[in-house]
Amino acid sequence: MRETISSAPEVIDTEGQPRLNRRQAAKIRTRQKVLDAARALFAERGYDAATIRDIAKGAGMSTGAVFANFQDKAELFECVFAEEMAGLLQDIQTAAGHEGRVVERLAEGLTAGYHRSLEHLPLMQAMVARSWFQPAAADERSRTFVKPIIEAIIAVLQAGIREGELRQDLDQLVMGRMIWDVFIANFRYAAYDNWGIEELTPHIRKQLDLILSSQLARQ
Amino acid sequence: MRETISSAPEVIDTEGQPRLNRRQAAKIRTRQKVLDAARALFAERGYDAATIRDIAKGAGMSTGAVFANFQDKAELFECVFAEEMAGLLQDIQTAAGHEGRVVERLAEGLTAGYHRSLEHLPLMQAMVARSWFQPAAADERSRTFVKPIIEAIIAVLQAGIREGELRQDLDQLVMGRMIWDVFIANFRYAAYDNWGIEELTPHIRKQLDLILSSQLARQ
Repeated sequence: MRETISSAPEVIDTEGQPRLNRRQAAKIRTRQKVLDAARALFAERGYDAATIRDIAKGAGMSTGAVFANFQDKAELFECVFAEEMAGLLQDIQTAAGHEGRVVERLAEGLTAGYHRSLEHLPLMQAMVARSWFQPAAADERSRTFVKPIIEAIIAVLQAGIREGELRQDLDQLVMGRMIWDVFIANFRYAAYDNWGIEELTPHIRKQLDLILSSQLARQ
Repeated sequence: MRETISSAPEVIDTEGQPRLNRRQAAKIRTRQKVLDAARALFAERGYDAATIRDIAKGAGMSTGAVFANFQDKAELFECVFAEEMAGLLQDIQTAAGHEGRVVERLAEGLTAGYHRSLEHLPLMQAMVARSWFQPAAADERSRTFVKPIIEAIIAVLQAGIREGELRQDLDQLVMGRMIWDVFIANFRYAAYDNWGIEELTPHIRKQLDLILSSQLARQ
């Protein structure tokens, strides 16, 4: 922890981030507390049954304090969604690494994604469920959080093309989106068939093999 | 319409169906009226925002009449879901036909599925959304309605194996489920990107090509 906190928000600290004054820092802590309570409640009940009143209770605050930070439940859910996708991206990218065969890299990356998300599977379910029935503007915003993950998948495909492993004419967007869709669809087996990482790992590997094999360049 | 309706429900008519007495026939008509109103309201609002009160209103009945036929909203939704999957199965099977290359048959079948379901896209969205967040017992029941569709897809794969088009060692279950998952995932483009049949048709064809090409038997 920093000992002294500057009162001038414009001052840039050594990591290039603007320093926060006490009030701003408190506001951020409050926001995060609300977000954590919201995430827990959405995971427990899904979107519709979670109320602002109970989220406030979970955060130990008044509903007024929640509304001072978030416009409504939809905004709260969107922030939780954004956090989750950012974490997922990081885990997938780290595990996919920078070298190796495409199918291995993607299998490693997506397995890491399952590792992460299985820990709060009901939240993941609520997110997918909501992605199917939300206003178009909300969908557009939530896509901006998913897009970097699909781009990370496509980046692995592109590395495979560059290195001559995959065909030059591969339809990157169709394949990248399909891999993401298949990755997401598998969570249903986790939710309803109790699949753990032991079942999901070979399954996504098999699916990646099916999707990728036809696109291997002739050696 | 039949002129005389037997009062004995056990009598079997020429189509092998038990004949219904007046009261039973009226009950079936009432049920169907409620189901149609429910389907319309679920399509308009999704699952959570549709109330029994409004479904009853849509059917021109009292809520009591609705509850005389259905235990609760969940049962109503399940019946609408079952009807929809039965119709989808029929359309896919008819269009997939009995001969031709696997990729063509599946593309024809699934395109017919899009044709059908695009007409009530919001209902389809509500169904997928709910499939991600329902009690395990409800999921198990809803799978019994989806299973015949996946089996129909697998039957096409099996024909391709028998006729030497596809590899003998193809993992039929993994592939059949994956094709279904991809088929469903594409509805999001219809919902949020205004994709119509013109966009979905070449898209599912491309995806089928990607999924199936690696499993073609070496001629």
